[in-house]
Amino acid sequence: MKPERLEKQIQFIIEVDKLKHIYRQTYLMDGTRRENSVEHSWHIALMVLLLGEHVQSSDLDLFRVMKMALIHDLVEIDAGDTLCYDQSARRDQKSREKKAAERIFNLLPADQAGGIRALWDEFEASKTPEAKFTRAIDRMQPVLHNFHTQGASWRKHHITRKQVMDRNREISESAPPLWDYLSTLIEQAVEKGYLSK
Amino acid sequence: MKPERLEKQIQFIIEVDKLKHIYRQTYLMDGTRRENSVEHSWHIALMVLLLGEHVQSSDLDLFRVMKMALIHDLVEIDAGDTLCYDQSARRDQKSREKKAAERIFNLLPADQAGGIRALWDEFEASKTPEAKFTRAIDRMQPVLHNFHTQGASWRKHHITRKQVMDRNREISESAPPLWDYLSTLIEQAVEKGYLSK
Repeated sequence: MKPERLEKQIQFIIEVDKLKHIYRQTYLMDGTRRENSVEHSWHIALMVLLLGEHVQSSDLDLFRVMKMALIHDLVEIDAGDTLCYDQSARRDQKSREKKAAERIFNLLPADQAGGIRALWDEFEASKTPEAKFTRAIDRMQPVLHNFHTQGASWRKHHITRKQVMDRNREISESAPPLWDYLSTLIEQAVEKGYLSK
Repeated sequence: MKPERLEKQIQFIIEVDKLKHIYRQTYLMDGTRRENSVEHSWHIALMVLLLGEHVQSSDLDLFRVMKMALIHDLVEIDAGDTLCYDQSARRDQKSREKKAAERIFNLLPADQAGGIRALWDEFEASKTPEAKFTRAIDRMQPVLHNFHTQGASWRKHHITRKQVMDRNREISESAPPLWDYLSTLIEQAVEKGYLSK
């Protein structure tokens, strides 16, 4: 083991601490503050562990899903969090995030940088059952937070039922029981006034 | 799939949001605020992925290590974070945490509650290579944070070199290269005045 290998790993570990300062639009369940991207990543990593049984695909590699959940937002250290309903900010999101991936992942030794990059590319491409499930949970978690904060972020940004349905419908492809649950929750949110019709 | 099974899983997922409000003594790398137990858990889950190659044991189950990292602090939702150098608070820590585990894990369906409890018991017992490595990284992470904040938490609590060495020496059993790195860092911390002699 060359000491510079461990040194590179440590530099990456120090660098990713910055993700604790990237705040998302979603509020914590008690509504007291917005959550950051590290808190979100931990939450979805735990959710994939508990909800994996609801996935259609029978031989899902949950370890890979969990790794994807942990690293999927690292690019936000440079690229920031982009509100999913902000069409203009989303226009250059891909290029900003690719540049961030280049810089951040390459702090690691080459083989590990390649491994993390492959996981992130898989998540972004959304083709494998693992990537689709990670994305399903990545979308489900803020719906739960919005519902349990009386639509705090939805109301702030004047989000409509159609926007939430359109963004989340792909969950049905990966995990139908979760989509059944969420689509009912979204209708309840409209009835309660947490979300515009 | 019975709907009450998913309902229990969702209730657990909502409950664990509370861990985002449990603040530890360790400061973020930029020193601006203390970190919470969710941020710490995410960080060590990512660290185990990157540093697993430094472990002595050849057939380490990294997936189990990662799961342990994600759930090891959930009991703090009820039991709070106990400063590792506070001997009086540590006296009843075990019983407070066991009671918390009973309540929190049992929000889940019985089979999943049992699975998480087994992981937490394994972590607490610190007998398997997986538990020893999770604990090694759990201890290593705050040393890195302390060093890079000029000993912010060490100085606040008047921690000595001997206390840090005694607490962290067991890392050498699981991952000798990491202990070599850390013991050098600890000596540097004393030289720089981040830590008392």
